[in-house]
Amino acid sequence: MMDIAALKRDLDGLKIDDHPAIVQQKSRDFYWYSPVLKQQLDHVTGDLIVTPKNEDEVIRVLAACHRHGVPVTPRGSGTGNYGQAMPLSGGVVLNLAEMNTVKTIAPGRVVTGPGAVLADIDKATRAHSGQELRMSPSTYNTASIGGFVAGGSGGVGSIRWGGLRDLGNVIRLRTVTMEAEPRVMELTGEDVLKVMHAYGTNGIITEVEMPLTASYDWIDVIIGFDDFMDAASFGNDLAIQDGILAKLITPIAAPVPYDYFKRHQKFFRREQSIVVCMIAPHAMDAFVAFVRSSKGEIVFRADQEADLKGLPPAYELTWNHTTLRAIRVDPTITYLQARYPSPDHLAHVKAMVDRFGDEVPAHLEFIRFDGAIGAAGLPLVRFTTAERLDEIIRIHEDNGCWIFNPHRYTLEEGGMKRTDDVQLAFKRETDPQGLLNPGKMIAWENPDYDYRSGKSFLFKGLQKAG
Amino acid sequence: MMDIAALKRDLDGLKIDDHPAIVQQKSRDFYWYSPVLKQQLDHVTGDLIVTPKNEDEVIRVLAACHRHGVPVTPRGSGTGNYGQAMPLSGGVVLNLAEMNTVKTIAPGRVVTGPGAVLADIDKATRAHSGQELRMSPSTYNTASIGGFVAGGSGGVGSIRWGGLRDLGNVIRLRTVTMEAEPRVMELTGEDVLKVMHAYGTNGIITEVEMPLTASYDWIDVIIGFDDFMDAASFGNDLAIQDGILAKLITPIAAPVPYDYFKRHQKFFRREQSIVVCMIAPHAMDAFVAFVRSSKGEIVFRADQEADLKGLPPAYELTWNHTTLRAIRVDPTITYLQARYPSPDHLAHVKAMVDRFGDEVPAHLEFIRFDGAIGAAGLPLVRFTTAERLDEIIRIHEDNGCWIFNPHRYTLEEGGMKRTDDVQLAFKRETDPQGLLNPGKMIAWENPDYDYRSGKSFLFKGLQKAG
Repeated sequence: MMDIAALKRDLDGLKIDDHPAIVQQKSRDFYWYSPVLKQQLDHVTGDLIVTPKNEDEVIRVLAACHRHGVPVTPRGSGTGNYGQAMPLSGGVVLNLAEMNTVKTIAPGRVVTGPGAVLADIDKATRAHSGQELRMSPSTYNTASIGGFVAGGSGGVGSIRWGGLRDLGNVIRLRTVTMEAEPRVMELTGEDVLKVMHAYGTNGIITEVEMPLTASYDWIDVIIGFDDFMDAASFGNDLAIQDGILAKLITPIAAPVPYDYFKRHQKFFRREQSIVVCMIAPHAMDAFVAFVRSSKGEIVFRADQEADLKGLPPAYELTWNHTTLRAIRVDPTITYLQARYPSPDHLAHVKAMVDRFGDEVPAHLEFIRFDGAIGAAGLPLVRFTTAERLDEIIRIHEDNGCWIFNPHRYTLEEGGMKRTDDVQLAFKRETDPQGLLNPGKMIAWENPDYDYRSGKSFLFKGLQKAG
Repeated sequence: MMDIAALKRDLDGLKIDDHPAIVQQKSRDFYWYSPVLKQQLDHVTGDLIVTPKNEDEVIRVLAACHRHGVPVTPRGSGTGNYGQAMPLSGGVVLNLAEMNTVKTIAPGRVVTGPGAVLADIDKATRAHSGQELRMSPSTYNTASIGGFVAGGSGGVGSIRWGGLRDLGNVIRLRTVTMEAEPRVMELTGEDVLKVMHAYGTNGIITEVEMPLTASYDWIDVIIGFDDFMDAASFGNDLAIQDGILAKLITPIAAPVPYDYFKRHQKFFRREQSIVVCMIAPHAMDAFVAFVRSSKGEIVFRADQEADLKGLPPAYELTWNHTTLRAIRVDPTITYLQARYPSPDHLAHVKAMVDRFGDEVPAHLEFIRFDGAIGAAGLPLVRFTTAERLDEIIRIHEDNGCWIFNPHRYTLEEGGMKRTDDVQLAFKRETDPQGLLNPGKMIAWENPDYDYRSGKSFLFKGLQKAG
């Protein structure tokens, strides 16, 4: 058994919280988008929230937890969707939110603490030199950069820069190991991949260096279409326009916009599918000319709207905010994460649209992938049973679509369904006792696990409910 | 006959030069890269150089020339390669070099006169707000923006932004018509295509608004390879890295670098093919990691070279500066302009390399084309006869490569070998007498011309030699 009382004595002087309501709140993320994870993880809670102010305090926490055999699960802002920051075996939730300093800004670079919120970083870099982060999730206003790097994959901006995993999209990560005497490591080049999207299972990120790009006063524009596939084609055609600078291109099928985007509802007809865009001001002439030659019509244009009060920014209609807005109106809704393989990605999309209709309302995100335009999807799912959800996934996969299952809490099941040898090897080096975020890396917990079993991985260390 | 004396009286007060040596000098560009054009155009000269200081003076010149029936051929810095700025029927050469003001700079935009030199524009925009033009030819240090828009197609930077013709890469053009009372027109959106790459045949550009991007202290890096196809593959693999910010990726086959890049020669072995790159400083860690996983080795890296004195910038080894450096050493050399159709562009390249060997040393430029990475080529040609040159072109075309023939002075023969209906219609509207840069638009001179004749178009108005 964990001796939490002894651990607390060892952490004397640090910011600690063990009030059950606070601990439970800080032990959760947005796992409840998934009815499957909601059932599996709803009872999960840590024993203690520790909030370090700097790297020295992180080292102290890790050394103490190592000594006492207490698991440590790092947490940024808790905006993840797969229980990334949830302590499956209890123990310490390491809340990095207060390590949020923006340390240095230079042409093309920013260095921050892991807890810095993305929007706050951009505020600083814009004021400093008209720069901003290359990409961010739709939780931009609350998500931390460390959480994004450790638990995210891309987002708004990926239409130009690809995903976080693409070499160059994270410049440097500073991490601390989980050992008797924790070591500090500096990772650059391809070495950053060792800890990226590893959910903190093989090191605690204490400093992040990210590339910046030119910031603009991006203009939110929404284009309406009578037919979803016309919207999808428009999005693709726009995405391959090399001269029209766009930060976001998101087709969403009717009736999602009208039914769920309540504050924008007045701009849509219910049968209208839309494409949500963020366009650079100096690209607007070209963009408008481009729309004129399409089947769409501009239904919303933020720079020509008299009253923007109460309207969320366009990116908060996209990526997983699409799902969030739908769930708020209809709590039975959930979603999938898909990739429609290029170059015939639109044909894959059409096949799924034709197959599922309104049971799986389409939602695409155009992204750059290996130098070309690709389509990711976060289709909504009108959930009935876990069995039907699995069937919908299987039908996607049988049709050549890739599913990154957001109804699983492990790295592998939510990802490529295979061991990441680099991350596993790094965990052996940095967390020999397996105390960092236990239960998230199948390759560590059960090296012989068969990903083709068709079942969910069950982590033996998962807290028992009730 | 043209009454040049009467024209001169009408232009009293304007800056005029009719000294034969000056007129001849200002009637030329870099047409002599082509032995074919050298023979055809060597004798071509205007009657008068007129150098307006502003748009009012341009209007005065055009009205007077219209009255006297005198052709007008606009000229920027004369860095074109196909006689774009050469007055085939004599008349006025309109030298726009002094209309070179950088007027306004804003986020993502710059407005200038047509004669502004690209490097001067960047100097101003960098100092103002850390911005630079999206793309430029290798003649960056001397070429004018008006000449680039009217006679160029892309260049350094096209790896990220595509070509000049891509919607959004030119924001606005202000032009003056060739009529009794010249009109001023403002072209935006897709309308800019009416006068772009039209060699000034359908309007005189008096103001240019271009998009800007973030400027960086780009680092020149050269990677050496034992085999050219390894260099080409590396270039392609680098080009599809969405997170590694590169401005230039140029594979060049041995022995071109060693034999012709004299000032860099010490960095190469003669049998080494190279890839010339410009990399953003904040991408260097990722770039070096990427090179490490390739078959190449870094043979030159400007940020780690003790003595850069006398070395030209890397972009002056690329695009048509590759050709220039070869011609300086071996005046019998000339070149082609090719596109190797995607997605099997490297297979097309290999087919031509295997076929021609050292008769046509390979030189690729990776560019973005309709949202994907494509390969353009400016292979050198060890010239023997015009017939063999035509045969080399035919073999390229028979193998599915597209040739934009740089040995022709017409828009169509150097381009897509078909009428550009938009530009032709615009010429009817803006130059009803056909006085702007005569002989360059076949569709105007001979609407029935057969592009499949296999012959060169012969402009009847071309000055007779001697």
